[in-house]
Amino acid sequence: MSSERLIYLPLGGAGEIGMNAYVYGYGKPGKERLIVVDLGVAFPDMDTSPGVDLIIPDIAWLEQRRDQIEAIFITHAHEDHIGAVAHTYDRLRAPIYTRKFTANIAKRKMDEYGHPEDAVTTVAPWPQQTTVGPFTVGFLPMSHSIPESSSLVIDVAGDRLIHSGDFKIDMTPGVGEAYDPELWADVSKDGVKALICDSTNVFSQNAGRSEATVGPEIEKLLGTAQGMVVATTFASNVARVKTLADAGERAGRSVVLLGRAMKRMVEASLETGVMKDFPPVVSPEEARGIPRENLMLLVTGSQGERRAASAQLARGKYMGLEMKEGDMFLFSSKTIPGNERGVIKVINAFSEMGVDIVDDSSGLYHVSGHANRPDLETLHDVVKPQILIPMHGEHRHLREHAKIANAKGMKGVLAVNGMMIDLSGNEPKVVEYVDSGRTYLDGSTQIGAMDGVVRDRIRMALNGHVTVTVIMDENDEALGDPWVDAMGLPEQGRSKTSLVEVLEADLAQFLGRANAKTLRDDDKLHDGLKRTVRQSANDEIGKKPEVTIVVSRLS
Amino acid sequence: MSSERLIYLPLGGAGEIGMNAYVYGYGKPGKERLIVVDLGVAFPDMDTSPGVDLIIPDIAWLEQRRDQIEAIFITHAHEDHIGAVAHTYDRLRAPIYTRKFTANIAKRKMDEYGHPEDAVTTVAPWPQQTTVGPFTVGFLPMSHSIPESSSLVIDVAGDRLIHSGDFKIDMTPGVGEAYDPELWADVSKDGVKALICDSTNVFSQNAGRSEATVGPEIEKLLGTAQGMVVATTFASNVARVKTLADAGERAGRSVVLLGRAMKRMVEASLETGVMKDFPPVVSPEEARGIPRENLMLLVTGSQGERRAASAQLARGKYMGLEMKEGDMFLFSSKTIPGNERGVIKVINAFSEMGVDIVDDSSGLYHVSGHANRPDLETLHDVVKPQILIPMHGEHRHLREHAKIANAKGMKGVLAVNGMMIDLSGNEPKVVEYVDSGRTYLDGSTQIGAMDGVVRDRIRMALNGHVTVTVIMDENDEALGDPWVDAMGLPEQGRSKTSLVEVLEADLAQFLGRANAKTLRDDDKLHDGLKRTVRQSANDEIGKKPEVTIVVSRLS
Repeated sequence: MSSERLIYLPLGGAGEIGMNAYVYGYGKPGKERLIVVDLGVAFPDMDTSPGVDLIIPDIAWLEQRRDQIEAIFITHAHEDHIGAVAHTYDRLRAPIYTRKFTANIAKRKMDEYGHPEDAVTTVAPWPQQTTVGPFTVGFLPMSHSIPESSSLVIDVAGDRLIHSGDFKIDMTPGVGEAYDPELWADVSKDGVKALICDSTNVFSQNAGRSEATVGPEIEKLLGTAQGMVVATTFASNVARVKTLADAGERAGRSVVLLGRAMKRMVEASLETGVMKDFPPVVSPEEARGIPRENLMLLVTGSQGERRAASAQLARGKYMGLEMKEGDMFLFSSKTIPGNERGVIKVINAFSEMGVDIVDDSSGLYHVSGHANRPDLETLHDVVKPQILIPMHGEHRHLREHAKIANAKGMKGVLAVNGMMIDLSGNEPKVVEYVDSGRTYLDGSTQIGAMDGVVRDRIRMALNGHVTVTVIMDENDEALGDPWVDAMGLPEQGRSKTSLVEVLEADLAQFLGRANAKTLRDDDKLHDGLKRTVRQSANDEIGKKPEVTIVVSRLS
Repeated sequence: MSSERLIYLPLGGAGEIGMNAYVYGYGKPGKERLIVVDLGVAFPDMDTSPGVDLIIPDIAWLEQRRDQIEAIFITHAHEDHIGAVAHTYDRLRAPIYTRKFTANIAKRKMDEYGHPEDAVTTVAPWPQQTTVGPFTVGFLPMSHSIPESSSLVIDVAGDRLIHSGDFKIDMTPGVGEAYDPELWADVSKDGVKALICDSTNVFSQNAGRSEATVGPEIEKLLGTAQGMVVATTFASNVARVKTLADAGERAGRSVVLLGRAMKRMVEASLETGVMKDFPPVVSPEEARGIPRENLMLLVTGSQGERRAASAQLARGKYMGLEMKEGDMFLFSSKTIPGNERGVIKVINAFSEMGVDIVDDSSGLYHVSGHANRPDLETLHDVVKPQILIPMHGEHRHLREHAKIANAKGMKGVLAVNGMMIDLSGNEPKVVEYVDSGRTYLDGSTQIGAMDGVVRDRIRMALNGHVTVTVIMDENDEALGDPWVDAMGLPEQGRSKTSLVEVLEADLAQFLGRANAKTLRDDDKLHDGLKRTVRQSANDEIGKKPEVTIVVSRLS
């Protein structure tokens, strides 16, 4: 006899920072009605996912239960929360609910991939609520580094859950809504069963600073600048983009927006009214006619991304503009771990041009969008949940956050991707482990991270590749000598002669010595040829390449 | 009419952190007698150098002038200063001079690669000097994060140069020699023409702390530990290894050394007398019989290196030992930019085991081996050189350091790899640009970074690889259908059928339509087949793979 239960199941974002995807369900076990909170992407890297374009959560579990999904709710428009909506729409076909600015971004994505924009429903913030199946969901405005970021108030079967989304505690966030302690006290006053809470900055011990502290520092800095000033930040951090533009305008500089995302985000903010005004901007063409000491460029590429405006400027001209000795480049941003190499490359390229680089090492020109430890505690203390489930963090962040919760008398639950938690009873408990993982968007197709495709690419990158072609005649004898092509391998090794020729000679020798049984048997022949190549290459160059053997039989 | 000149030429380490190699020369232009200071390596990464084992400086310029080289002087035994001596010995065959501990490490390297150990000459520190050709060189003891690190006092043609090597200002460095202000004042008192100076930490604004401050903090930390404690640092930081071991011993813990380098460095330090004593260590086998709360493991792998002891412990058992809930793992080290991903992976794996991780975010358990800005200024002020040439830094570091020098009334010279500076006259000037660059040690061979080998590997990693085999008969007609093998590519794409079959069908169609001229002409046939594969793959999977075409003609 099974009664209804309330479940929480992270499919992405719990045990990693990126590709957020959280599932809530209510109903009889296996028959729960489901909602999904956020469907984001993570970004590939050469070490683990070369050639991959984007990483999305493995949604096989959801796809199998497509009929049980009531809706998808998107907390805010950062790629790690919204980036997968279009890439998963074909498989889920669930309606998407979000607020105006986020809906604007979501609709552009749907449109780009040929999906109906009306799958996206725009909802008003709290106190409006949306009821889907057993869930009633409200978007509670919260401060973060993008406009309209919201926490979700989820009422289900008499219980209230709060899913924090990404947030910081900021009373003066510039563009976007402030943290409102009274509103939070009000929604929490009748008791909150569980707070599912951002954990990104749990290791940062000092309270976060407000966005409002950044502007004055940037203005001071601009006062010292002699030449052109170029500043970068995440384009979606519209408050920061405006802070920078306002400072530029006040310093008598014409503002130029460079990079597609930069223009798109400013447009979307004005269109949806989340930003009321923005200084006049000039086009790159107009900028060329303005003295450089009167220019301020706001550019994409704070993470050193190869194709973004900052990296293009680091390589030379971009849109007819270029940096020169005496100019200043400001990172109004933090380097995300893993992106250091790209950022350092850009910095050194600018250094070679004689550009002065200002980064965030002083702490003055950037504030984080996530709550530091004291700010997390502020939220714990106003919500006072029975249960705290850390999310949006690597394992170490979740673990630390759960420890803090336990120390404060809440029930801290360490739930990573794939762990289904039953929140119905007095004690939260793990009831199931669901297959979760990563799906790669690779060119125009989706492949499983464990399919072996990327593993083969990594092997070719590490070991190089050799193709061996052999033609066998009607009598199962080699017709001519084996033919070798090599890619990604040194031209010669130990014997100071062509590697390809050494391999061909050794293969010819192998074929000359092989017995009739081996020559007739495709598997044996393949194995023998492959072994010969790897051994011979190892002797010559100290590497065992990946090998493709093609045996053509004329029989 | 050309008179003698004094030149400085960095071939590695100036414009990057890694593979240090600096050349000094004196004599008539083109006939200078040369000495080399340091011959180090840099480390590869997947982004730029997949499959490569080590990166060494391109020494073609030196090799062409082998007869002019008097000697190689090695300042200290860090890999980025000593790592290339054995890999370049065949090509340079110059005698190597260094101090006892460094010579011990150098000889092991020479021996490992079958070179004569007696190419390495052990010299005593200042006031002893070694004269080779026009140069008289003394090793001035200096504090750094490895024993016996030295600055070089180079007297040539009446001028004194000081090459700082890597250094910090530390009066109490534990193992290794202290910075001795009187000694430095003494060698500088008659005037120093140029100080060639470490720039690594030029952006660190606060004075560095002494190694001696680390021990007490580690002891406090050990006082709080309940289970086994595992600590990592660079094995070559023998002072730190001893600090950790001493703290462990005082806390009543048996010390275990894990990882080859850890044991080798402690051995070398004791053998050469740079370290007088070390707490007794127990073997991993013995450790298994000791309660875990009485154990302290000192392990390699502070940078998250996959094969080091820390990463192995993060994956499970290593030498029969494993970490458990309640144990502590201490990073007594800093993560070098670019290594973040590997380190974070190790941290999260430990977090999953329930291990408490202590890193350097508090600043208590590690001090840098390099001089911060105020410490650099301390050295400037005691040496008072006419010229300051920043080295050991990326472009941004060198530029900043040169600016500081100019602001203080020295002549700051920004010289990057390949830039030959004439120091003879009153004004240092660039007299030549020499080809410099990187050579890859790849398996057992050396290849040029620009050879295209690694570029092909990166392309295969990004795009996958396809082999096409076609057999043409005596009449230049295709015998059977073309055959496709794919590696690192999705099995199917848009048409939901085998990618290989789609490619084969499109290739067969291409061959069916090709005219006789194309079929007879190898180049045309290759081009057509390749274009067909790339177009067809792009339609199917949105990627254009690397392609190897093998056409076998039976004629």
